Amino acid sequence: MFVMDFYLGIDLGGTGLKIGITDPAGRIVYKQTFPTSVQSDPDRMVKDICACIAEVIGRSGAAGKKIVAAGIGSPGALNPLTGQLIYVVNLQMLNGYYLSPAIEKATAIPTFLDNDVNAMALGELFYGAARGYKHVIALTLGTGIGGGIIVDGKLYRGATFTAGELGHVTIDSNGLLCNCGNYGCIERYAGRDGIVNRFNAYYVQKKMASAIVKHLDNGEITPRAIAEAANAGDRLACMVLEETGELLGVALATMVNFMNPELIVIGGGIANAGDLILEPARREMHKRAYTLPAQAVRIVQAQLKNDAGIIGSASVAVDAIKNKT
Amino acid sequence: MFVMDFYLGIDLGGTGLKIGITDPAGRIVYKQTFPTSVQSDPDRMVKDICACIAEVIGRSGAAGKKIVAAGIGSPGALNPLTGQLIYVVNLQMLNGYYLSPAIEKATAIPTFLDNDVNAMALGELFYGAARGYKHVIALTLGTGIGGGIIVDGKLYRGATFTAGELGHVTIDSNGLLCNCGNYGCIERYAGRDGIVNRFNAYYVQKKMASAIVKHLDNGEITPRAIAEAANAGDRLACMVLEETGELLGVALATMVNFMNPELIVIGGGIANAGDLILEPARREMHKRAYTLPAQAVRIVQAQLKNDAGIIGSASVAVDAIKNKT
Repeated sequence: MFVMDFYLGIDLGGTGLKIGITDPAGRIVYKQTFPTSVQSDPDRMVKDICACIAEVIGRSGAAGKKIVAAGIGSPGALNPLTGQLIYVVNLQMLNGYYLSPAIEKATAIPTFLDNDVNAMALGELFYGAARGYKHVIALTLGTGIGGGIIVDGKLYRGATFTAGELGHVTIDSNGLLCNCGNYGCIERYAGRDGIVNRFNAYYVQKKMASAIVKHLDNGEITPRAIAEAANAGDRLACMVLEETGELLGVALATMVNFMNPELIVIGGGIANAGDLILEPARREMHKRAYTLPAQAVRIVQAQLKNDAGIIGSASVAVDAIKNKT
Repeated sequence: MFVMDFYLGIDLGGTGLKIGITDPAGRIVYKQTFPTSVQSDPDRMVKDICACIAEVIGRSGAAGKKIVAAGIGSPGALNPLTGQLIYVVNLQMLNGYYLSPAIEKATAIPTFLDNDVNAMALGELFYGAARGYKHVIALTLGTGIGGGIIVDGKLYRGATFTAGELGHVTIDSNGLLCNCGNYGCIERYAGRDGIVNRFNAYYVQKKMASAIVKHLDNGEITPRAIAEAANAGDRLACMVLEETGELLGVALATMVNFMNPELIVIGGGIANAGDLILEPARREMHKRAYTLPAQAVRIVQAQLKNDAGIIGSASVAVDAIKNKT
């Protein structure tokens, strides 16, 4: 009998819990989204998560299949070796909690934990845009900007598992104050607030024309709304994305000079604007970075899109099993 | 009979050629400096280098000893796998030349080539301040600023061997124009010209008091002269070093957030000012970097000092032999 290896991906967001089962090719065979259970008692939360896992396995018909391992992608600081969450802003009741051992104990599935951006980087490495590459920087552009670093085909986590805080690469030491306490972090310019504030500076304060109202995101001006407007040809939205790309390109030049990667793969909401943001980013990077490493790198959009969270989390499990054997 | 393994270190500078023999503990048993032979014909230059090597081996009494391998540390861009120099500003006649194969052929000593800053990083890793560390960033502060990256105890060279151009980490995207074409590179502020220009802005233009004349370096105000004046208590020199350290700290924060290293080891002329520059650098890094990686990193002065070039170059050979076996 031919038995395939399946993996469980658990994408632990502050607002939603996504759980899916992937096949050996990284395709999702079943997935489901749950509201994040917010309990003051972490044991209770883990019980809820395990109930969701059981539901997904049950409904997927995977009960009879072999689930080799589960991977959890979590925001915040954590220890992938012990499975302990250290500091997660949106799930503070779990700070200090040994999450993956608790889930492993309850489900009897070997369970591994890593940072959500590292998970995304592994997902792109195994199943997405970074397949076949050895030296990769993965970026997610969302509310914040996160990074994952692949060195010699393996995830690089750093001395205390915080490597890749690429949203906090400085582009202007006298620039805008960032939430992290530093001034001029790229996240402050190309993260959600940076993009929206820059749009509003033109649209609200300078009263420049835009058809953004046709693209509002639940009534709000968001990077997604701006990207949609730009894709529909809105000039102001295009200009704001171009500026965002150029600012991102400043940080990319630092990354290219620093790491000499073969590939920079960029995901997250605003990356869906594609070349409207990536092309000015590439141009600015080429203006600023050394010629040799600039010529050696490709800057591309991530491939996994909306499933990046689940496939990335499953990839944490794939990676852990691969490194064990 | 007990035979020790010796290594040959060849430090190829634009103005001087330093050659030395190191013992298994990385101590120099004999060394000599030669003026760089500048010939239009690269074969002639290599012949001259080989004559210097023969002289060093002869005078050292090492002829009877076992020289396992030779390492060459060179400025510029090169390919450590093939031993080809790609682009060296000060030795342009060698651009494109397969240097280490030519020297290996002439001397019958296995010869390996790497970047001088990578060589320094390996020297500190094997025999200096980075012994026992796994994740290290090495910086040299000189005319320019160079970097070497150690990941998991091994030198990280990047996709096309240019990783670690840390002098070209941006600290101010609208800042001073750098030789590389970028604006606001840290090298422009904490490299030789940046330091000297800042000193002169206070001393010459604002006519602030300083006893720098007592410390001139061959009649010139250089970073070394400023460091000496500062060590002798000169207030303006101290202030300029403090500003330099703070600017360096901005770039260190980016590096710490990026790589989460255990250790940053800083060498090169101005690093001899020690805590006069390192303490403000540490302070500024702590102000700006994430708490977790900032707490995980030590920032220290390099240990190999004046012998860093030879010991580093020999370490390129030690590393190559280690990775072969």
